[in-house]
Amino acid sequence: MTDMTTGDHGEEGGRRFAVTGPDRGADSSVAATGRAIRVTVWGENVHERNEPEVAERYPTGMHGAVAEGIEELLGERAVVRTATLDADADHGLSEEVLRETDVLTWWGHAAHDQVSDEVVERVHRHVLDGMGLIVLHSGHWSKIFTKLMGTTCTLRWRSEHDRELVWTVDPTHPIAQGVPHPMVIDEDEMYGEFFDVPAPDELVFLSTFSGGEVFRSGMTYKRGHGRVFYFRPGDQDYPTYFHAGVRRVIANAVEWAVTLRPRRETPVLLRHDTEDFYRGFDYTGALDPSARVGS
Amino acid sequence: MTDMTTGDHGEEGGRRFAVTGPDRGADSSVAATGRAIRVTVWGENVHERNEPEVAERYPTGMHGAVAEGIEELLGERAVVRTATLDADADHGLSEEVLRETDVLTWWGHAAHDQVSDEVVERVHRHVLDGMGLIVLHSGHWSKIFTKLMGTTCTLRWRSEHDRELVWTVDPTHPIAQGVPHPMVIDEDEMYGEFFDVPAPDELVFLSTFSGGEVFRSGMTYKRGHGRVFYFRPGDQDYPTYFHAGVRRVIANAVEWAVTLRPRRETPVLLRHDTEDFYRGFDYTGALDPSARVGS
Amino acid sequence: MTDMTTGDHGEEGGRRFAVTGPDRGADSSVAATGRAIRVTVWGENVHERNEPEVAERYPTGMHGAVAEGIEELLGERAVVRTATLDADADHGLSEEVLRETDVLTWWGHAAHDQVSDEVVERVHRHVLDGMGLIVLHSGHWSKIFTKLMGTTCTLRWRSEHDRELVWTVDPTHPIAQGVPHPMVIDEDEMYGEFFDVPAPDELVFLSTFSGGEVFRSGMTYKRGHGRVFYFRPGDQDYPTYFHAGVRRVIANAVEWAVTLRPRRETPVLLRHDTEDFYRGFDYTGALDPSARVGS
Amino acid sequence: MTDMTTGDHGEEGGRRFAVTGPDRGADSSVAATGRAIRVTVWGENVHERNEPEVAERYPTGMHGAVAEGIEELLGERAVVRTATLDADADHGLSEEVLRETDVLTWWGHAAHDQVSDEVVERVHRHVLDGMGLIVLHSGHWSKIFTKLMGTTCTLRWRSEHDRELVWTVDPTHPIAQGVPHPMVIDEDEMYGEFFDVPAPDELVFLSTFSGGEVFRSGMTYKRGHGRVFYFRPGDQDYPTYFHAGVRRVIANAVEWAVTLRPRRETPVLLRHDTEDFYRGFDYTGALDPSARVGS
Repeated sequence: MTDMTTGDHGEEGGRRFAVTGPDRGADSSVAATGRAIRVTVWGENVHERNEPEVAERYPTGMHGAVAEGIEELLGERAVVRTATLDADADHGLSEEVLRETDVLTWWGHAAHDQVSDEVVERVHRHVLDGMGLIVLHSGHWSKIFTKLMGTTCTLRWRSEHDRELVWTVDPTHPIAQGVPHPMVIDEDEMYGEFFDVPAPDELVFLSTFSGGEVFRSGMTYKRGHGRVFYFRPGDQDYPTYFHAGVRRVIANAVEWAVTLRPRRETPVLLRHDTEDFYRGFDYTGALDPSARVGS
Repeated sequence: MTDMTTGDHGEEGGRRFAVTGPDRGADSSVAATGRAIRVTVWGENVHERNEPEVAERYPTGMHGAVAEGIEELLGERAVVRTATLDADADHGLSEEVLRETDVLTWWGHAAHDQVSDEVVERVHRHVLDGMGLIVLHSGHWSKIFTKLMGTTCTLRWRSEHDRELVWTVDPTHPIAQGVPHPMVIDEDEMYGEFFDVPAPDELVFLSTFSGGEVFRSGMTYKRGHGRVFYFRPGDQDYPTYFHAGVRRVIANAVEWAVTLRPRRETPVLLRHDTEDFYRGFDYTGALDPSARVGS
Repeated sequence: MTDMTTGDHGEEGGRRFAVTGPDRGADSSVAATGRAIRVTVWGENVHERNEPEVAERYPTGMHGAVAEGIEELLGERAVVRTATLDADADHGLSEEVLRETDVLTWWGHAAHDQVSDEVVERVHRHVLDGMGLIVLHSGHWSKIFTKLMGTTCTLRWRSEHDRELVWTVDPTHPIAQGVPHPMVIDEDEMYGEFFDVPAPDELVFLSTFSGGEVFRSGMTYKRGHGRVFYFRPGDQDYPTYFHAGVRRVIANAVEWAVTLRPRRETPVLLRHDTEDFYRGFDYTGALDPSARVGS
Repeated sequence: MTDMTTGDHGEEGGRRFAVTGPDRGADSSVAATGRAIRVTVWGENVHERNEPEVAERYPTGMHGAVAEGIEELLGERAVVRTATLDADADHGLSEEVLRETDVLTWWGHAAHDQVSDEVVERVHRHVLDGMGLIVLHSGHWSKIFTKLMGTTCTLRWRSEHDRELVWTVDPTHPIAQGVPHPMVIDEDEMYGEFFDVPAPDELVFLSTFSGGEVFRSGMTYKRGHGRVFYFRPGDQDYPTYFHAGVRRVIANAVEWAVTLRPRRETPVLLRHDTEDFYRGFDYTGALDPSARVGS
C-alpha cells in the first residue's frame, strides 16, 4: 500500500500507485468508521479549587463546563472525558490516554510551569502524530502552545468586564458554521494585539472589546500531522464557557480537528532509495518510448 | 435569527446572540440533510469532436471520463450530470442548472473565447454564492478562472510525454486523503512555473516532470462564499482522467468544495444601523454596570 | 542572460546560470538607479466638485491631500503627480502616464461606473507588469480592485463619526514602520467585516470602531508582477488624509509597492523547448558521470 | 513617543499619536543609519575537520565559503564574521556577539546535539528580538530551527549526485531578484517532500531533482520580531557554496532579514490600563461631540 508518510509505495496490478478507496480496511479512524470522536478536555483546575467565586461560577470546574458544552452539541458524535493537573503524575495525560484521544482541549493559566516537561513532550508528539489540539484563552501561554508556535505568545490584557464581539472573517470555514456574526459576549477578559504568534494558516475570528482593542481570536495551524485551533474567549472570572456561541465554536473545532488520516504517526526522516524513483546514471523512467502508456 | 451574511442579528430570550444548532430547519444543504452532492461536469468537448485519437481515447468525452470517475468513487454520495459548450446557448449552464449544482468542474482548452461572457458572469456569481468550482488542467486559462484569480494565469508547457510525479505537501488536507505519495502519472503534458496566480490559501500538491520542471499542481482558494480548487493533471492527448489517483483527487475535491453554509447567497454591501451595536454618543453597551452578567 | 520571466536562460562561462549582480546594466529600476519613485495619485474628484463642505475640507482635492502627504514624507525620494476622472478621456491615465508610473494610488467612490473599461484594462495590465497599486478606502468597490480580487469586495459601513483605532498585527512589516500602535483617528467612516476579498498575502493592520466593529484594514496582495496594498482609512466626510499616521502608512506603502524587478513585463505563456532542460528520450543532464562537478 | 512593542503611547501636540519620521533619532538600525549589516556566519565545522575531501573542497570551511559569498556580493554593505561549534563554550555565540549581529546564518549537520541548549535559548531570544536568521540545508534539523518551527522538520534525502533545479514561484520577492529561473546546480544532495514544517509565510523557491523529487526550497517565516529564511541547497559533499546563484540568494536573504524596527526587543506581556483607550464605565472616547475634529 502506498504510504504518504514514509514515501514508500507498492505495486498494485502492475501500476506504481495505489489509491485507498472508500473501504480503508484496518483503518479505525473517525472518517473511516464513523465512530464517536474521543475528546479529552484538560483543565488546570487551580482557580476552581482556590477561589470560591470561581468554584461557584463553574461548579464542575471550567473543564466540566467545556466538556458539557461539547456533549450538549455533539451528542453521540463525541465521547468526552476530562483530565486535570492534579489527576496524577501525568496530569491525567498518560501515553494510553493520549493514544485514545482524537482531540485534546487545553485550558491553563495559573500553573503553566507546574505542567511537567515530560507530559508536554508527550502531548507535542501526539499532536505531530495527528491528535487535534484546541487551545483555549489563557492556554496561549502554556508550554505546549508556545512549543508548537515557537514564539513568546505574549499579548495585551485587562480584566475589567469588557464586552467582547467576535466577528467572522472566514464565513465558509467549518468552525464558523452556526456562529452569529457578531457573537456578543457580554463580559469577558480583554486580550489585545500584538499577539506574538506565527501568522495563522487561517484567520477565522476577530474579537473587539469595549476599550477598542482587537485580537485575532480564532486561528488554525497545522503542525506535523496535527491540527491546532486557538480560540480566545473564556476566563475563570466570567461565565464564558456557558455561552451558547462559545460552545458552538468549540464543538465545531472538535469536529474540525479530528485527523482524516488512516492512522496516527509522526513525520520521520527517510532516505529515498536509488532503486525507487531515482534510477541513477542510467535513468530512463517513463522516458523509455516502449514504456509509454498507449504505445 | 442571526445571519452571518447580512450582519443582522436578533434577540433570543433576551440575549443578543443566537446559535444555529444541529437542527438547521429549512436548511437544505448537503451538511444538514446528508443528501447527495449535485455535481455538474463541464467539458468543452471540442478536441473530442475534431480529433479522432482524442475521441478514441475518451469515447464518452473527457467530461464523460471525469463524470464516471466521480460516480465510481463517490457512489450514492453524488449525483453527476455533464454539460458542454455546444449544449445550448448557455453551454448547458443555465441559471436553473447552476442553482441546482453544488459543485461544478471545468475543463476547457481550445475554445475558451467561445464561452459567452454572460455564462461566465453567471458562473462567477454562483461561485461567490457558495457553489464549489474545480478547475482542471487547461482550464487555467478559462475566462472563469482568470476572472476569479485576477491575474494572467499563464505558465510554461510542453506536450512531450513527460512523466509526472504529484507530491503531497499538505498531508492532512481532505483532498490529499488516499492519494499516493508520490502519485505517478506515466505520461502527461508538462506545466511549469512561473504560474501567474495569487498565492493559494492552501498548497496541497506539487508536480515534477521528466524535464525537471515543477508546478504548483493542487491549490485551494476561497472566493466570496465559494471554494475553488485548481488541479493540474489532465490533457486531451493523454488518458489522465482514467488514472485512479487523479480520480481520487477529483472526488475528494468535490466533497471538499461543497459549501457548509445553510444557503447560497452572495456577500452584499450593507449599512450597519446606529441602533445596532453602535449606540451613538451615549454609547454604553455592556459597560453599564447594572447590565453586567452575575451582578 | 537568464530571464526569470521568460524562462529562457543562457550560457555564461560554460555554466547554465547567470546571476545579475549589483550592477544591473540597462536596468532603470528604482532599485538599480536610486532614482525617485514616480507616483501618480488618482482621485475621482467628484465630491470635491459637488459638495462645498468637502471642497472646504480638501481645498486641493482629496488627491491633493494624498499627494502632499507623500511629498511631505518621502521628499526627494518621490516625484508625485495627480490625475482625476475628468482630466481627459483616459481619466489622466494614458498608456504613457502609466508607463512612467512606478506606483499608482486610487481613491474613488461616487463614480466607479464612470471609469472607462479601457482604462481599467490598462491599469490592470500595468499592475500585472509590475506597477505598484495602493487602493484607498472606498476604492474597495472600484472596477480595478474588484477585477484584481475576483470577488464582490463588499463590506459593512456607517458614517457616524466613529473613532477608529488602527492596530498593527505584523510589526516587522515595512508598511508598519513608524506607525503608532494603535493609531488613533478621532473620526472616520466605519467599515466592518465581512469584507469579501481573498485572504491577503499579509495582514498588516486591523481597525476597530466606536460601535465595536472590526475591519482588516491594511492588506497586501501580489498579482502578476505587481504589488497591491489596500488601506482602509480615508473618506470625503472626514479630514483623514491630513492625519500624520495615515500619511505615514501611505508613504511607507509607496516605497513597499515599487517593483524590485529590472523591468516591467507581464507574465506570459511560453513553451519550454525540448532542447532546454528536457533532453527527450536520451535525457542525461547532470546524470552523465563525466559531467560531474569535481570528478 | 508611541511604541509599537509595548503598546504605550504618548501625547504629542495634543494628539494621541506620534509618527516616527525619516529622522529616527537615537535609532541605530541599518534602515535609519545606512550602516553595514553585521552578519555572523555560523558553521558546525565538523565535516571539514574530520573528512579530508570536505577540507579540500572547502579550504576555509563551509562557513568560510558562505562568508566569502556574502562579502563578494554585498561588499561594503555587510561586515561578516564567522563562528563555529568549537570556538568556545558558547560556540562563538555569546550574548555580546548576538547583540551585535543583525543577521545570523546557520549550517549544521553532524553535531546538532552538541549545540548547548543555553546557546539555543539565546539565539532563539535574539531572533524573537529582531535578529534575522538564515537556516541553510541540513540546518533544517538543528535545535534552533525545530524550536522556531514547532515541528519535526523531517524530510526525505539521498546523496547521489542529483542535479538540482531551483525554480522561482514568487518573482517579485526581494530574495528572488537576480536569481536565474531556473537556477541549475549540477550536483547536490537531494531533499524531498514531505518536509514537516509549518506552511511558510511566503514560498519563494521550489527545487526538483534528477530522481523527480520536489522540495519547498526557499521559505520565509516571521517569528516574534525576527525574520527567518530557510534555504535548501548546500552540502558538505558538493561545492554548492561556491555557486554564484546560491551566493546571490544568500546575499539577498541577508539584506531581507535585517529588521527595519528601530531597536531589538522581545514581544512582552502587558496589561492595558483602564486610563488608556479604555475609559471604563463612563466610556466616551471620541464619541463626545465636543471632541470631534472640525467641530
